[in-house]
Amino acid sequence: MKTRPIGIFDSGVGGLTVVKQIFKRLPNEEIVYLGDTARVPYGTKSPETIKKYSVENADFLMRFKVKLIVVACNTASSTSLDALREKFSIPIVGVIKPGAEKAVQVTRNNRVGIIGTYTTVKSKAYEKELRHFSRDVEAVSKACPLFVPLVEEGWLKEGVTFDIVKKYLKPLMAKKIDTLILGCTHYPLLKPVISKVMGRHVKIVDSASSVADEVHNILMALGKLSGQKKPKHKFFATDAVEHFVRVGEKFLGTKIKGARKADYV
Amino acid sequence: MKTRPIGIFDSGVGGLTVVKQIFKRLPNEEIVYLGDTARVPYGTKSPETIKKYSVENADFLMRFKVKLIVVACNTASSTSLDALREKFSIPIVGVIKPGAEKAVQVTRNNRVGIIGTYTTVKSKAYEKELRHFSRDVEAVSKACPLFVPLVEEGWLKEGVTFDIVKKYLKPLMAKKIDTLILGCTHYPLLKPVISKVMGRHVKIVDSASSVADEVHNILMALGKLSGQKKPKHKFFATDAVEHFVRVGEKFLGTKIKGARKADYV
Repeated sequence: MKTRPIGIFDSGVGGLTVVKQIFKRLPNEEIVYLGDTARVPYGTKSPETIKKYSVENADFLMRFKVKLIVVACNTASSTSLDALREKFSIPIVGVIKPGAEKAVQVTRNNRVGIIGTYTTVKSKAYEKELRHFSRDVEAVSKACPLFVPLVEEGWLKEGVTFDIVKKYLKPLMAKKIDTLILGCTHYPLLKPVISKVMGRHVKIVDSASSVADEVHNILMALGKLSGQKKPKHKFFATDAVEHFVRVGEKFLGTKIKGARKADYV
Repeated sequence: MKTRPIGIFDSGVGGLTVVKQIFKRLPNEEIVYLGDTARVPYGTKSPETIKKYSVENADFLMRFKVKLIVVACNTASSTSLDALREKFSIPIVGVIKPGAEKAVQVTRNNRVGIIGTYTTVKSKAYEKELRHFSRDVEAVSKACPLFVPLVEEGWLKEGVTFDIVKKYLKPLMAKKIDTLILGCTHYPLLKPVISKVMGRHVKIVDSASSVADEVHNILMALGKLSGQKKPKHKFFATDAVEHFVRVGEKFLGTKIKGARKADYV
């Protein structure tokens, strides 16, 4: 049981920023990653549809007898955790709670900004979690639908990217936030530009490292941490595997070998 | 048979620019429109997946006994027409051929530019059609993946939009094209900016009006033009119907009434 893999899914490549942190924090764990590239993006779809897709993705991961599932997609985390926990008996970890928890620890003036996709922002999932940790936090959120295509296009340092970031973040700056949650797994790649726009006094929180900590804590508590020396990871995409690998390597920061097509979509 | 509707599908709202032209050219025809918003965008998916989706979309339209199907999506037109024509016996009209035909008529220096999604550009479908009409045309193409999200965000006149358009179209300007095909049904909304960037000497061709002409010609030839006074149109989306209506009205230029969810996805 201890050497069973951890399953991770996302709507596409974004969740690989979470895998990167899990590799760092839990180097002995085997990972099965699934990017639902056939149905990406989730951010503009309805909660019902995303729930259905999430359950199908988890079903696929269960074929590998995973011991825990990370929903490494903010949109899916904001809509589907209850449905997944109802259906599966293994621990299901989302990205919202860890991010919200970290933001509450980090903020000094209790003004926290959240950026993400339309569906994530509309779900108010971060607001709910923030309120769960602290009654004093005032949250301001903003959907930034152009950030994902900018990242996928690889325009991380261009002038237009700077202008778009500024355009989206202006209302958050006006609210004098001192902490900004990157509520989408694509956004960490824009962190340098976002930092530059927001200024040094605003702390940028991305969930990826907090998620890795949470996974570590849960597996430890359950006595299920693996001690494998060289775990073999598996990568799947539901479509366009080649493109998934090419873009995904930017997110993961290392090579992706032997990626295959998942056949259930 | 004459009063049977025309079926039109697209990956989302973009095809409504084609509907707009059909309303103008064929005001007596009843339209059944299907936007596959649950699986949008098609432009980053593999040809096999797009083929599968296209057949499913056409199957849905066949429930309404349509007399002709317009594939109002460049990506689907560039990959799925053969599969559709093999399966269905009614006429199937794509958007590539009419656009290419018009470009060949319009160009004077035989240098034609094509812009579209990754999959459309990679398919070289426009190049093939252009060559079919003229051996002398030299084609230059460029994928512009940020145009669709810019249009969906409604940023049609912003400074960043101008900068992004300029960034993408620079290599086409360097090739001294005198005609530019908008190879994606979202792009007509960016026509003012694109015109401004390219200059007055470059003729912008969008397929929508040519497609309406082609549909007219085919139905006339088959003796199937309708004479209905006030045809009742139907609009379907596979997900997020409310969002489909809100954004879609910008593309159609009029109100969309009674849109419903298609249930087969």
